[in-house]
Amino acid sequence: MTITVDKIAEQLGGVVNGDGKIIIKGASRLENAEKGHITFLSNDKYLNKAKNTNASAILVSKEWQDIDFDVPTIAVDNIYASLADMLNIFGEAVQSEYHISEFASVSKSAILHENISVGAFSVVSKGSQIGEGSQLLSHIYVGENVRIGKNCLIYPGVKIYNDCLVGDNCIIHANAIIGSDGFGFAPLKNGTFKKIPQIGNVVIGDNVEIGANTVVDRATMGSTVIRDGVKLDNLIQIAHNVEIGKDTVMAAQAGIAGSTKVGANCQIGGQTAIVGHISIADKTLIQGQSGMTKSVKKEGTKWYGTPAIEYNNYLKSFAIYKNLPDLESRIRALEKMLADLKDSSQ
Amino acid sequence: MTITVDKIAEQLGGVVNGDGKIIIKGASRLENAEKGHITFLSNDKYLNKAKNTNASAILVSKEWQDIDFDVPTIAVDNIYASLADMLNIFGEAVQSEYHISEFASVSKSAILHENISVGAFSVVSKGSQIGEGSQLLSHIYVGENVRIGKNCLIYPGVKIYNDCLVGDNCIIHANAIIGSDGFGFAPLKNGTFKKIPQIGNVVIGDNVEIGANTVVDRATMGSTVIRDGVKLDNLIQIAHNVEIGKDTVMAAQAGIAGSTKVGANCQIGGQTAIVGHISIADKTLIQGQSGMTKSVKKEGTKWYGTPAIEYNNYLKSFAIYKNLPDLESRIRALEKMLADLKDSSQ
Amino acid sequence: MTITVDKIAEQLGGVVNGDGKIIIKGASRLENAEKGHITFLSNDKYLNKAKNTNASAILVSKEWQDIDFDVPTIAVDNIYASLADMLNIFGEAVQSEYHISEFASVSKSAILHENISVGAFSVVSKGSQIGEGSQLLSHIYVGENVRIGKNCLIYPGVKIYNDCLVGDNCIIHANAIIGSDGFGFAPLKNGTFKKIPQIGNVVIGDNVEIGANTVVDRATMGSTVIRDGVKLDNLIQIAHNVEIGKDTVMAAQAGIAGSTKVGANCQIGGQTAIVGHISIADKTLIQGQSGMTKSVKKEGTKWYGTPAIEYNNYLKSFAIYKNLPDLESRIRALEKMLADLKDSSQ
Repeated sequence: MTITVDKIAEQLGGVVNGDGKIIIKGASRLENAEKGHITFLSNDKYLNKAKNTNASAILVSKEWQDIDFDVPTIAVDNIYASLADMLNIFGEAVQSEYHISEFASVSKSAILHENISVGAFSVVSKGSQIGEGSQLLSHIYVGENVRIGKNCLIYPGVKIYNDCLVGDNCIIHANAIIGSDGFGFAPLKNGTFKKIPQIGNVVIGDNVEIGANTVVDRATMGSTVIRDGVKLDNLIQIAHNVEIGKDTVMAAQAGIAGSTKVGANCQIGGQTAIVGHISIADKTLIQGQSGMTKSVKKEGTKWYGTPAIEYNNYLKSFAIYKNLPDLESRIRALEKMLADLKDSSQ
Repeated sequence: MTITVDKIAEQLGGVVNGDGKIIIKGASRLENAEKGHITFLSNDKYLNKAKNTNASAILVSKEWQDIDFDVPTIAVDNIYASLADMLNIFGEAVQSEYHISEFASVSKSAILHENISVGAFSVVSKGSQIGEGSQLLSHIYVGENVRIGKNCLIYPGVKIYNDCLVGDNCIIHANAIIGSDGFGFAPLKNGTFKKIPQIGNVVIGDNVEIGANTVVDRATMGSTVIRDGVKLDNLIQIAHNVEIGKDTVMAAQAGIAGSTKVGANCQIGGQTAIVGHISIADKTLIQGQSGMTKSVKKEGTKWYGTPAIEYNNYLKSFAIYKNLPDLESRIRALEKMLADLKDSSQ
Repeated sequence: MTITVDKIAEQLGGVVNGDGKIIIKGASRLENAEKGHITFLSNDKYLNKAKNTNASAILVSKEWQDIDFDVPTIAVDNIYASLADMLNIFGEAVQSEYHISEFASVSKSAILHENISVGAFSVVSKGSQIGEGSQLLSHIYVGENVRIGKNCLIYPGVKIYNDCLVGDNCIIHANAIIGSDGFGFAPLKNGTFKKIPQIGNVVIGDNVEIGANTVVDRATMGSTVIRDGVKLDNLIQIAHNVEIGKDTVMAAQAGIAGSTKVGANCQIGGQTAIVGHISIADKTLIQGQSGMTKSVKKEGTKWYGTPAIEYNNYLKSFAIYKNLPDLESRIRALEKMLADLKDSSQ
């Protein structure tokens, strides 16, 4: 596809500085942009790179609206939101034809809107519902009595166990699992474990994105809840009866243990672990690889370490940790000085 | 389904305190129980919650047998084991009809008991065997010469490579992998690596549960062994030639590197790493996110940290770590005092 | 299969010490070798075990060429490379018949070499290409315009999103994901996030091995790049726009965040995290569970801890960390001594 700079600016609500008639045929990052592409400048650290780019146009923040580059710029308020819109222009056209594959196995009792897709080798079990505009690609398992809302995009290999609910406009990436059993066992006197049946489900809100190979376990009783707007990266573990508040984002390989409640608008770093049965206030920030071992009651605090402590305190302690051998030397020196002092005073 | 409190108590071998004629139609946790539900009280921390629950009955430990709640109670010896039994009453009826899907691809040379199920789009390869009562759901791959015992439940998307063995009464959750290649390469002089063929297999005992997206690699030679009663949570990595002893439980995202032996009845926290070629004694407890770097010879010890040290020692060191800046200030103060002392004595 | 010691030595280019006529029918590790098997000795720590093995022959390093064992030995230059070759002798014969399953769904517009296999319930989408000798097992999804080179082995359940490229001689293990969306969202003023379309792809070189349930995200724009000879273990996370240099190996459950460049010949331990937007020099060694938070410019350095510091420094600091309560006692003793001194001098 090709489009003029003016036309892109119009779609983004941006302001052109330079020749808006130039024709653009793709989008690239600064370092590998080529002629005919539009690129973007999000950080003044890259200003020099932008001045030397091979791109034919640059999307910039409003603050750079009046800076002259060799190529036309489009200035916008929110660079990342506009980038999202711009990439949509060049991204693949959204599928508009709906189709149920002849290789899919769909129960007669499933309630499917007429405008949906079900890909090859996917299974839709009895009693399940799929809303308008949702697309299920290949190799998907939709268990019994599952409900999937409108305009969802479910990638190949996703497995959704019985009774789980997915809201509208959700994206679930390949091989993610929704509704597997919580990890619950009753220890018996002989050292073995008896499985505690997991009769709850998972309830996912609207506008949720779930990464590839991520697992969300069903509740023992009740529901594991992922609220509207939550974004989960790949390979994440969400245990039984966890609740995650609106618009919280979690990076890859993080995990939350059973029955913990995480608030809204939290940001949780990669490989973080949060123990079970605690609650984390809204807007909490957790640095990657941290281990949260107790509840956080105050909003907007930042944490680091295992067990996690307040972020700045962790950095201060770590700065000394790095030089512990020095610290020990200073103590040894003090010990020697004091011993000498004693000797000389005797 | 509906059932009286008396009838539940009878099935659990419990003692009713209150009106046993009350009718129950579901089970819930304390906080979201509603009228007509039975709930449970496992910890006196929740005693007040239990006194104010909306539930119509409560399963309690024997020690609370004589406490009067507003609703009838059923007192039992082992609250979690009874909870398991109780949830089974309300859980889904176990499938009793066996069926091989018309959309399954089953080798003619596979030996299948007549009472098994194979779901849509599952593959059972030549030379494999599946025992009585086992249910394979959809999208499962059973490689050549695989043996699956009796009464196993294999969830959608599980892949079992050639030659692996699974015992009786095992549950394997969605998209788990059994028998992928161990990570073994011979470094060559030119900096590249030559793959070491992985010609062993995986041997899984009876009553094992394996979580969603967990991976158990096959042995280079011989077998990777998961003994009876082991419970593995989701997203766990078990490398080639590992052995895990009976009734050991591992929480999500933990990993064990090649050729390590873990004893029986161990409890391994989430995101723990255990290095290769060591052995861990029976009944070892490992706190989440720890890194075990050497063998543990004594039974029943507890570990924490990376590299892991004895649990209480870790906590003591960490208590000081949190205040390292204070410690450093105290040293600075001492240094100053000593300098002053020296000055004044000159 | 059976083969004489002489014949094995001939194939490995090794030197026999002892009776080369002995017949071998399998390969085992020292501890569970039985009569008729060949085993191997890679480390003099196991010399005694080797002297008492039940095996009928031993593969040894050249340095042990003249040591007499009770059974014949084959001495070789590179024990692990020869072990790889030897196991290939006993491993399964490579499949030589090519076959496209009647249960596969292959687009008419896909360009397939005549010598390939596509297993049951696999999908090959329009515009994709598969090179000579490549074998796709069951339940694989190959998106549109994907290119897979020659002699690749793709295990069941692998999903490859649109537009991704895989080189020659690659092995991708079960349920791995190639090309899922990068985790990119533009924060909006109301606290919600807007998805940034991920219109790039993944480019995988030759001789790459990717472990089970590992995820490699596509680039936002441009490509996520995995260069020739890279080996990724299981359950690894590779984020959008990451580049990994030639012959780098990563152990299980490690993760690399967005836009980071890792050099060639690096060794990255299990459960390591590398933050986004940094670069790691060639031949860097990173201990398991470390957290790399800044770029490494010098080749061949070794790192440990979170945040990671130079390996030996970490060990030195940790040695003191383990005894922080002692250190604190020494400071308390000094404080007391100084206080006493002051008292006595007043």
